Order: sequence, then C-alpha cells, then structure tokens
Amino acid sequence: MAQSAEHITPKSHLEILNEALGSGATMQIRRMLNGLPAADAAHLIDSSPPNIRAVLWQLVDSENEGDIIQYLSDEVQAQFLRQMDAEEVAAITEGLEADDVADILQQLPDRVIREVLDSMDHQDRIRVEHILTYDEYSAGGLMNTDTITVRPNITLDVVLRYLRRHEELPAMTDSLLVVNRNDQFIGALPLRKLLVSDPSVTVREIMDTDVEPIPANMSQRDVANLFERHDWVSAPVIDENQTLLGRITIDDVVDVIREESDHSLMSMAGLDEDEDTFASVRSTIPRRAIWLGINLLTAFIASGVINLFEATIEKVVALAVLMPIVASMGGVAGTQTLTVVIRGMAMGQIQRNNSRWLINREMLVGAINGLIWAGIVALAAGLWFQDPVIGGVIAAALVINLVTAGLAGAVLPLVLKSLKIDPALAGGVVLTTVTDVVGFMSFLGLATYFYA
Amino acid sequence: MAQSAEHITPKSHLEILNEALGSGATMQIRRMLNGLPAADAAHLIDSSPPNIRAVLWQLVDSENEGDIIQYLSDEVQAQFLRQMDAEEVAAITEGLEADDVADILQQLPDRVIREVLDSMDHQDRIRVEHILTYDEYSAGGLMNTDTITVRPNITLDVVLRYLRRHEELPAMTDSLLVVNRNDQFIGALPLRKLLVSDPSVTVREIMDTDVEPIPANMSQRDVANLFERHDWVSAPVIDENQTLLGRITIDDVVDVIREESDHSLMSMAGLDEDEDTFASVRSTIPRRAIWLGINLLTAFIASGVINLFEATIEKVVALAVLMPIVASMGGVAGTQTLTVVIRGMAMGQIQRNNSRWLINREMLVGAINGLIWAGIVALAAGLWFQDPVIGGVIAAALVINLVTAGLAGAVLPLVLKSLKIDPALAGGVVLTTVTDVVGFMSFLGLATYFYA
Repeated sequence: MAQSAEHITPKSHLEILNEALGSGATMQIRRMLNGLPAADAAHLIDSSPPNIRAVLWQLVDSENEGDIIQYLSDEVQAQFLRQMDAEEVAAITEGLEADDVADILQQLPDRVIREVLDSMDHQDRIRVEHILTYDEYSAGGLMNTDTITVRPNITLDVVLRYLRRHEELPAMTDSLLVVNRNDQFIGALPLRKLLVSDPSVTVREIMDTDVEPIPANMSQRDVANLFERHDWVSAPVIDENQTLLGRITIDDVVDVIREESDHSLMSMAGLDEDEDTFASVRSTIPRRAIWLGINLLTAFIASGVINLFEATIEKVVALAVLMPIVASMGGVAGTQTLTVVIRGMAMGQIQRNNSRWLINREMLVGAINGLIWAGIVALAAGLWFQDPVIGGVIAAALVINLVTAGLAGAVLPLVLKSLKIDPALAGGVVLTTVTDVVGFMSFLGLATYFYA
Repeated sequence: MAQSAEHITPKSHLEILNEALGSGATMQIRRMLNGLPAADAAHLIDSSPPNIRAVLWQLVDSENEGDIIQYLSDEVQAQFLRQMDAEEVAAITEGLEADDVADILQQLPDRVIREVLDSMDHQDRIRVEHILTYDEYSAGGLMNTDTITVRPNITLDVVLRYLRRHEELPAMTDSLLVVNRNDQFIGALPLRKLLVSDPSVTVREIMDTDVEPIPANMSQRDVANLFERHDWVSAPVIDENQTLLGRITIDDVVDVIREESDHSLMSMAGLDEDEDTFASVRSTIPRRAIWLGINLLTAFIASGVINLFEATIEKVVALAVLMPIVASMGGVAGTQTLTVVIRGMAMGQIQRNNSRWLINREMLVGAINGLIWAGIVALAAGLWFQDPVIGGVIAAALVINLVTAGLAGAVLPLVLKSLKIDPALAGGVVLTTVTDVVGFMSFLGLATYFYA
C-alpha cells in the first residue's frame, strides 16, 4: 500500500507562498522564486491559478527564467512562451541542455521554432535541430548529445588525464562511451570500473560490451521499460548504422514514467495527462464538454433500450426503481476488470496467448460474485416489493450483467488496441454502454416475459 | 500525449515464451529464464497465469532464484516465499542488497522473518535488521548501507588510491559521501567532480555542501518527489543526529514513483496497486466482492430516492426512460473533476488556500457545460416524447446535477483527506452516490411538481 502522507517540502513552500500572496508580501515572494531550486519554483507556479501565475512570472528574475521554464508543466510552459517573441525565447533557453530546448520549442508553432533557431548561436542550433528531427516521443527525442567518448585502444591513465582537461563532466555521467574510428558504439566504460582499475590497462580490456544500445526510433515507453528493468542511469542511443548519436539519462526517463502512468488515470476520465490542474475556465469548458457529449450519446442509447419496455414499466413501476442497480453493478464490475487489464497492458504483461486465461478468469469471477450478490439483492428486492418474481428477475439479470462485464472489461481493451484506439480513453465509455444496455435489456426483458 | 506503442523487447520475449509453452519446449524455456537478465525473467513469470508460474519457477536454476525473486511483483514473491522454509529463504537471498532482502522478508510472517535472520551470516543479518527497524514506506526502508565514505581532510590523490583498493564500487555510486569523525554527513564528492579535479586538492575544497540529506523517517512519496525534482541519482540518508545511515538510489525511487502513480488509478476502481494481474480466481473473488457490496449499498440508496417518486413515474413513464441520463451525466462530470483534483493532490499542487479557486472553477464549468448540453437534451427529449415540459425538467435537472458534480468532485477529496480517508479509494463511490441522489431527486422532484 502506498502511503497517502503529504509532501512535506513542497507543501510548506506552497503554504508560505499562499500566505505571502494573501498579505501582499511581494518582496518575500520574489526572494522565494529566485532563491529556490528552479524545479521548486516551477512547482509553485504550476500550483497557482492563472491570474497568480502571471504575477509570479513577473517576479522571476530574467536570468532564472530559462531554468524555471524547463520545469513547468507543458501547458503552463506553452502559455508563457506564447507571450514571448522569438528572440526572447532564444535568450532564455540559452545554456539549457539541447533536449530540454527541443522540448520547449515543440510547444511553439513551426514558424516561431524557425525564428528561434535562427536567433540561436550556431553550435546550439545544430544540436537542437538534430534532436528536433526525431519524434518527440522516441528515444531520439529524449536523448542528449553531451556524451564523453573514448577510443578502445588507449590506457585508463590517458583517459584520466583526458577527463581532467574538462571543466566538469555532464550531469548523470555514469559511463564513458567507447566508439571506434567510425563513431560506432562498441562499449561502455563505467566510472565505477574506471576508478578501481589499474591505470595501465586499456579501455578495451575492461569496457562492458554487453550494453544494449538504444535505437533512436524506439518509443519512449519502451525506453522507460528498459531503464526500469535494467536499473540504468544513462544509456547510449545509436542510429541504424550503430553510430553513436547521444545518450538518454534517467532524469528524463523518470518524467516519461510519470507521464505514462498518469496517462491511464487521466484517459479513463477522458482527460489528457498533460492537463493543467489550474487551467482557466475558458480552456476547461470545451475539453470537458466533448467528453460529456460522447457520454450523452451513450446515455441516450441506454434510454432507448428502456423505452422498448415502456409498457412493462407502466405495469410494474418497481422495475424503474430497481433497474439502475443492475446497470450500476455491471458498470462497477466492468471498470474493475478494465482497470486491471489496462494496467497489465501498460506493463507489457498481456499478450494474445495469455489473454484467454484472463478473459476466462474475469467471466468466472463475474459469475461467482454475481451469484453471491444476486442472492442478497433478490432477497432485498423481493421483500421490499413483496414480490418474489421481481427478486428472481433482478438476480438473473445481475448474474448476466456481471458475466458480461467481465467479458467486456477483458476483451474490449484488446480489441480497441488492435484497432489502434487507446483503450484507456475509449474503454470506459464503450464498457458502460455495454453494461447499461445489457443490464436494462436483461432486467426489463426478463420482467416483460414474466409479467406479460 | 503518451504513445500507445508496444513494448518491443518484453513483448517479443513473452511471445517466444508463450509459443514455447504451447509446444512444450521445456529446454528452450529453461535457457530463456536462466539466460535473460533477472528482471526480464521475473517479468515473464509475473506475466503468466498461476499454473504456468509454478512450472516456470521450477525451471529456474537455484543460483538464479534470489536474483529473480527480488524483481517479482509483491504478490507473486509472497506466493513463492510461502512455499519455502526459512533456510531456503536465507540461502536464496544471500548476496542480495540489504534493502532488497528487507523488502523480501517483509512479505513473510514475523516468526519466519526471525528464523530467516537467524539463518543468515552475522554481518548480513545486522544490516538487514537495521533496515527492518524502519517503516517499509519511509526513507529508512528504502535505503541501502553500501555507501563509500571519505574524510574531508584527505587529498583526492589519496581518495583515488583508496578507491582502487575496492574490487568494484557499488552500483549507482555517483558520489562519495563525506563524513566527520562522528560519522555525521557533511558533504558529497561527486565522481564527476573527482575526475576533473587536481589530485592534490583536499576533499573539503571541492565537496558539495549544499546537498540536503534525507531524514530516515521521511515518507517514500516525499523522497520520490525530491529525487524527481532535483534529478538525483543517489542521496544520503541521516538520522536525527545527522549521522549517515546509508543512501537511497534512483532505481528504488523509480519503483516508488511507479507505485504511487498506479495507486490513484487502481484505487479509483477499488483495487490495490500491488494487485497481481494474473491473480487466481480464488483470491480475486473476495477482493472484488467487497467493492461490489459497497456499490450495491449506494445503488440501493439511489433506488430509495426513485421509489419516493413512484406515483409520478406511474403517471409519466417517460421519466423512467430519461432519468438515467441525468444521473449518468452527473457521474461523468464529477469523475472528471475528481480525477483532476486527486492527481493535483498527489503532485502536491493543491492546498487549502488555492483549493477555493479550483472549487469555483469546477462549479462554473459544470454550470456552463450543463447549460450547453441542457439545451440539446431538452430539445431531444421534448421532441422524443412530444412534451415540452419534460424537456424543461430534464434541462433544469441536468444543470443542477452538473454544478453539484463540480462541487462534490472538488470538495470531496479535500474533505476525505482531512478525515484521513484515501480520496482515490473512497472518492468515486461517495461521488456517484451524490450525483445519483441529486440527479434522481432533482429530475423526479421537478417532474412531480410540474405533473402534479
């Protein structure tokens, strides 16, 4: 069980900020924003309503803007960037890592990206342009070009002297990358190994050759899975000719993991994982409206089913009272199955051959739990309306609907995926349509048969 | 938007496994399980139904069991451990890192933990016992004791010679930790800095002193937030006297991040984030049954509300046909709000002072979207039943319910949290009870007024 304890550090900063905002202590806020680590300052801005955000951004010193902007959530970043011209963007992104600059630029319209690139200095521009050629969600889009490379035939002593010529090694450097004459990746030399080895041996003798380099076109989800499973801090990225292009570091992978995990949660409510918690009313309305519209359509389908049995309901009004129970239990059971399957798919655990076992389990669990609760519901409903027939009908409908829910919850994500539709986004809507329709149909249908 | 592309590597292994299982190629499976990295082998076992798991575990060579078991998901790990005696557990966990051994032991009953510890060699036992004294979900429970410490007054040259006396530095060592005579943490010496500095300077001159050490009792969620925000690879852990206890590494933090992210998703469907995707039918039934039971209770409450208006429904059956629309739209809108707020809380973005803005936004968005869809629903319902009154009634009820949904979706998680109830677990149930009750009540209540 995960703890639900609070974030001590961010919360206290956020509290201090909100108190300072309340008392108008502008100087204190300015000191906070410019004194905290950039990521913490960005967190405070992300955690504020739109009007406050604008004020906070004004209080950030211009030399800190670039540092802070890279940590802002995508939507907030885009908002601030939209108010800058190309030269301002070029100025604040100066000194950031190439992959972070590329991430920022991707928030801008193509025309502006071109202008910003033109305002950058030559070498930075080349690096950023290179990363921009890769898909934002691929290994190429995640990588950085700040690798330190060495040749296999030199001794460690030479390596150590070469390193000392650097002002500083790039952050997250846990390995030097070994390349041949053609810049092809041939191995890695972990600092952990370099530091314990005899300086007179050559790189070739101690380098790791079983490191699997990452192809630039691998999806970011696969990259994250590799890092997670192999406990990597950084990993080399290569093109189709084995040429070393750069490296991916764990800090960027952690963001991907967070994003991928949020994706299922947010999509199941029809939301985007980039959704800004404090988005304005104006930008929130249309996004939510679309989802409500889709659900309205499915609700009308369910109503259409009920309408088929108008005559029966007119005769036995108790049916109208009880029918939501059958539909809602199906929805709850189906959502449980759907969630388990969607998470299993996200973890790469489910595949055609083992999905049959899952589908069977879900139907069986649905049937048995259906029978358990059907007994209780039958008793309650029968006593309530003094009518054993209605008890029997609701019990039967409940079992039918829970088995259907198990089947639909397990099969739908697989089917949607094979149709290239995101199961997390579409699964819930389709599922509840199925459980509503089957729930109303079985309950009212059986009732019509017995009361006709 | 996250990609929904497939996991290339794991999937192909899983496919090969399932094909081999189909054709009974036992030798091939044994080679796979013992030849793959332990984490990948564990993934294959996690991704199999219970009966297959037992077969696969038999095929793992005994010298690989410890390596693989540490990567299994908690539930599967516990299953296998339950079948071993204390000596077997002690044998297979030999050579693992102390924090990983502690994690494994925590799956066992106290009596067995004692027995396993007694079977371990002295030094390992001391280390593991030390970690077991901390809460599993605290920094102390996450940390490892494999730190490399140095004193501030020695030169880097001495440090380099000291390091060369090691066979190998522990994995994820990105910094040496600097301690004083009393073993109190006073700074960190990043390898990145050690390697570029003049060997004749002392540790004190170049060590980082602005590193914030982690108190052993900090919650794992806060630890994860610090790592995520500061891009750390490892961080020192101290007790209340500043004494260095060990260090936490990013690989363990990534697991926490994954777990915390899964928590919201799984809890919202009444599931535990440790839930085994391929749990047996027998263990799945009771877990799901409880959740269904809770929801059954809320469904009966909604039925009770409908029952109040039996007479009206008897007169106007169209009400029974349309009433699920009002309830379902409220449920959908409320779930969207709830999800946004729960995610914001998990990210530490929401705090009492800024929650008022969120509540207002959600009610306003609910009102405006309510008005938008109310118009369309009124038209559709009015035309369908040739009755403008029913159109007006459903429109009004829809607006009332969407505003309620916005209010409840935003306020509930805050209230539940202040009552120390997990909002992700209880929020959805309480919310849909509210939107069902208010939906039926407003729709049928207004109808009763106009049709009486």
